[in-house]
This record gives sequence, structure tokens and C-alpha cells, in this order.
Amino acid sequence: MWLADERAVESISIGAGILGCGGGSNPYIGQLRVRQLLKERGPVTVLSAEELSDDARVMCIGGIGAPTVGIEKIRDYQSYNAYNALTGFLGSVPDALISNEIGGGNSIEPMITASLTGLPVVDGDGMGRAFPELQMKTYFIYGVPCYPLCVADEKGNSAIFSHAITPLWLERMARAVTVQMGCTACYALAPMTTQQVRTTAVLGTLTLARDLGEAVRGARSSGTDPIPAILEVCPGKVLFQGKVMDVNRRTAGGFARGSVSIDGLAAFEGERMVLEYQNENLIARRDGEVVCTTPDLITVVDTDRGEPITTELQRYGFRVTVLGFPSPEHWTRPEGLAVVGPRAFGYDLDYDPIRL
Amino acid sequence: MWLADERAVESISIGAGILGCGGGSNPYIGQLRVRQLLKERGPVTVLSAEELSDDARVMCIGGIGAPTVGIEKIRDYQSYNAYNALTGFLGSVPDALISNEIGGGNSIEPMITASLTGLPVVDGDGMGRAFPELQMKTYFIYGVPCYPLCVADEKGNSAIFSHAITPLWLERMARAVTVQMGCTACYALAPMTTQQVRTTAVLGTLTLARDLGEAVRGARSSGTDPIPAILEVCPGKVLFQGKVMDVNRRTAGGFARGSVSIDGLAAFEGERMVLEYQNENLIARRDGEVVCTTPDLITVVDTDRGEPITTELQRYGFRVTVLGFPSPEHWTRPEGLAVVGPRAFGYDLDYDPIRL
Repeated sequence: MWLADERAVESISIGAGILGCGGGSNPYIGQLRVRQLLKERGPVTVLSAEELSDDARVMCIGGIGAPTVGIEKIRDYQSYNAYNALTGFLGSVPDALISNEIGGGNSIEPMITASLTGLPVVDGDGMGRAFPELQMKTYFIYGVPCYPLCVADEKGNSAIFSHAITPLWLERMARAVTVQMGCTACYALAPMTTQQVRTTAVLGTLTLARDLGEAVRGARSSGTDPIPAILEVCPGKVLFQGKVMDVNRRTAGGFARGSVSIDGLAAFEGERMVLEYQNENLIARRDGEVVCTTPDLITVVDTDRGEPITTELQRYGFRVTVLGFPSPEHWTRPEGLAVVGPRAFGYDLDYDPIRL
Repeated sequence: MWLADERAVESISIGAGILGCGGGSNPYIGQLRVRQLLKERGPVTVLSAEELSDDARVMCIGGIGAPTVGIEKIRDYQSYNAYNALTGFLGSVPDALISNEIGGGNSIEPMITASLTGLPVVDGDGMGRAFPELQMKTYFIYGVPCYPLCVADEKGNSAIFSHAITPLWLERMARAVTVQMGCTACYALAPMTTQQVRTTAVLGTLTLARDLGEAVRGARSSGTDPIPAILEVCPGKVLFQGKVMDVNRRTAGGFARGSVSIDGLAAFEGERMVLEYQNENLIARRDGEVVCTTPDLITVVDTDRGEPITTELQRYGFRVTVLGFPSPEHWTRPEGLAVVGPRAFGYDLDYDPIRL
């Protein structure tokens, strides 16, 4: 058990940006929203899955939409609205909350509702990174029902998907409503049991995000290189270093989609890396050759400061380092790859795990 | 009180086709579906609003989607699925059902659920015709809340809109989900009170539709002209007679949209009428001059047989009569015209009531 205070949330937002692979909603805006509540109402309790009581009920809270919209239409208390509509539907309240994805601002979205309800949050999430679509959750892959799920906006609209025949159908319906709601919304999922959390979630990821953020902040204050500090906390490798030359970005179908081209510097001089994304980076090509794919993590950070750069904020001229991290093992089994492997995103490629 | 048996349902479907202004879902397919159930389970009871007990709770049942899709993807028991999901959400069952719109197949959609549950249906509806969008209901105009409302498909997916800030927001969200469900679905609305039904519904419309259908069938069997028989039951006028020359039809945004051009015959020789529709006919132009607009009813029937022709089935060569009927007064007040007048559909026109 530990307390998420303002400093912890600021660190988590940096670490979650790194784990977010460019998406998961803007972590900087996310931490500003959470920190304001913590300032007013005190820290939020973080429990490990082991510390949960065996009969606890844990509600997943998350965001849905296009990050390109989320930086202009800042979230309010939508997740609390979704929580209220769903607990009203169910006639009961959960004992704890858990994040849908540790990547980006969604890592700390449950803390908004946790702060307003006094509930603890669980140290874990349903992805171990960020992915763009609802069905892409370890919870669902390993047997947690995907309904009822409530999507709510900031205006007072709420939709409860009381039954969905598959998680993919849930995604289709919830995405369509989200687009109508203004392309950004929050959701709450009917509670899981403690046993389901322990067996399906990617555990310890809030702690990992916090430690990653602390490492980056430590490197900054000591004036040392943040990249080795990141790789020490979370084993991975440098895929590329260079300067952003071209950004292709559009908001389509409720997602941010596009690509980023980076011209190499230093050891990568004369080479080019292209990253393609759907909210999150999905594939990295170095001079045309695929060097990393989903579900492995592909993240872009500012080379000097280690600050994660989300896909919606990429710009010409940024000096960046592209990092690759191995996927949580939840995704590398056949049932995981079927949902988030390269083919699930339309690439005619098999998953080839990153070699460190 | 009367019993809707197979003959009554067949007559209602003709009358509802006439009142449907070209939309409201295909009435012929609707009656086939209902008659099959009546054959197996006996007739459905129709109660007038006066016969409802004062403390009854009445659930509105309807269809949503594009009629162009509905004739290829035939509805199953979606309305019963919506009924079950909503009563599960509410924890109670209603005492009776009522139609969303008397126009087209939706006039008898509640009879599917009525037959499967044993509930009666109320002799009335929420439009007195058909309109394409959810917010276009006399219920909502005159104060009935538009939520919770459940949309369900035939596969097992259901979405409950537990709160919508306006009926228009409900339409946006429900339409988006309907498009995902395959562009045709059914819905159930949280029950109204008897008092709400009596003061907001267009009453007696199942009887009117049945009588219209009987008049058409009577004319057919006696070999007389069905047009005067229709106008005797439901006062209106002949707007045009001729031959369909051109049909422009597309399925867009969850609706059937387009126009029909008719070249005049007999008294209308040398003239042309163009009807524009969004599921239903909205405006009639005779040689370019507007002669009838929403909310007045614009309906196309086969000249010889009096059979209503819905917009999704219009074809080159049909010999047709275009009829106009005055709108129910619910729509001609300012609060009604704001939602279904010509301007609500984007026409820069004031409503000019049809003169008989």
C-alpha cells in the first residue's frame, strides 16, 4: 500500500507516458486534473492486488476517444459520471478501482473517481501499456465479461451497454457513442472479483510508472542522461535517435491515426525511422525494415529530457529517442496476439519479439 | 377494446403504410412477422387510452434505422430483446405497450412483444404518422422524459441510454449505435403513466389505420376506386397523379435519403412532382412550387389498388397517386414545428398547412 500524492502522480504521468507508446490520452493534462483534486482532497490509496481482500469487487475505469481531441476538449469528471450511472444500474458500489491501461493519462483516470468516492485504486491495469480499442484488455482476453459497461460524457449523457456479444461488438457500439459525445468520453466496467484481478490484470504497473517517472526526474536534476535511467527501471532498448521530419496525423473513426518520420542523428545518421500509429505507435520501420511491432512497446521520448512525446503532440524538429520494450507476456500468448498482434491492426506480419 | 387478429393486422399494415408517408419501416414485412406470431399465439388486445387503468404504466416500443436496410435485414425479436433489457434495468414490467409511430411497420412492432408477453397495446402512438428521428415524438414534445431507452439488435447486443440531456442527444447516440448494429434495431422506452399517454399521444390511430386498410380492401373487392375510399376515412386531398420517372435513393447516416420524380397523367398531364425524403416524404414540389410540407402527411399509393408505396420500394414506371393529409395538431403548435417543421429538416420554409 502506498499513497499517491501530487509528486507521485506527477512521476506516474511521466512513466505512464513512456509506457503509453504515444497514446492513452495526454498524461500531462491528466496529471493536472488529478493533482487539482489531490490538492483539495488529499492523496489516493494504492493497493497491490495481494492487499485486496479476497471478496473485493474492483471496477475498471478508463477513457475512450481520440487523443487529438482530448488535448482540446479537456476531460472533466466523465469517469465519475460513468461510475455513478453504472453503480446506479447495478445497485451496488465497488470496493476499489483499477485502470484500463497504464499508458498515458488513463493510468491515473481512476484517481479522479477514487478521490471523489474515497475508494482505493489497485496497482495494476488491463494492458501494461496503452492500446486504442476497448476489446484490447487482458481482463477480457482472460475471461472477465465485457458488460455491463457505461460510457458517459461531461454533459450528462450516459449509455450502458448491458449486453455485448463480444468485446469487439462492445468496442463498435461504445466508439460510435463516443464519437457522438464529442470524440472523448470515459467509461466504467462492471466490477471484477479479486481473483479475476489477480489472474488477468498486468500487476504492479502504477508502481512501475511511478519509478520510471522518478528515474527520469532524478536524471534531470542530476544532469545525467535520462535514457539509461529509463532502461534501468524498465528493460528495453534504443531503437532509433534523430529529429522528427514529418508528421502525418488525422482524426478518423474516433481515433488519432497517422505516422511520424524521423531522420537519424549520431549513430543513426543517414537512416530514417517511420512509426505508424492508431492512437498508439504500432510498428517501427528502420529504412523500410520492420524492427519492432505491437504488442511490444514503441515509445518516443525527448532525447535530452526523457519526456514522453504522445502521438498527438509530435512536431517537426523534435530531437527524439525511440525506445522499444518487450510486451507483457499476457499479450504474447496466441489469445493475446489474436487481439493486439500486428495482424489485428491489418499488418500482414507475424509478431517477432524484440531482442534486448 | 378490440382484438388485433390476422385480418386486423393486415388491414392495419395497409392503413399504416398510408399514414407512414413512405417510411416507418416496411409495413408488408411487418405484418408478415406479426401475423406469424398471432397464428401461433392468438390475437393481441388493443385498449383505448380511456380503457387503461389510471395507474397503468405504458412502455413505448419502436424501430430505428434505415428502411432500405430493413427490407434486406428482416427484423427478428429485437423489440422483445429491448423490452427484456429495459425491464431488467428498471426491475419492473409495464402494464401495456404503445407504438412509437403509427406509420409503416412500426405501427405493429409492439404487437411482437405484446404477443410474447401477453400485454395489451394502446390504441395510439407518438407521431400520428412516421418521422425519421427519435426526438420527433409527441411524447417528448409534451413532457415525457426520453430516458432510459434501450436499443437492442437481433444478435444479443443491447445499449441502455440511462440519461440523455435532450431527445436530440438521445437520437444522436441511439442512431450511432444502430448503425453499428447493422442499421436496423428496435428500442423500448421507460414506461409512461396513463395520464402522460392520454395527454401526449396521438390517440385512436390503430383504429384509424385498421379502418383505412379496410376501406382499401373494400374498394378492391368491390372493384371501385380506392382513392375516394381512403379520403372518406381520413380527410385529405390528391396532390398529384402520374408515373414514377426517376428515383434517387441512398442509405446515409442511418437513414434512407433521396427523392422521387413523378410525371403527371390525366388531370396532371405535362406537370412534374418531386418528393424529397429522409425515410419519410418531407416536401412535395409541383413544377417547382412547394405544395405540401412536413408535418402534413405526404403519401404515395398505387393508383389502381390504393396500396401504399414506401420510399425504399419506389420504382420507375409505378402509376401512383400522391395524397396529402393534415398533420395531427400536436405538430402544428410552435413546440411541434420546432422539431418536425420544414426548418427542422433544413428547408428554408415556413409551414403552410394543407388546405382541403
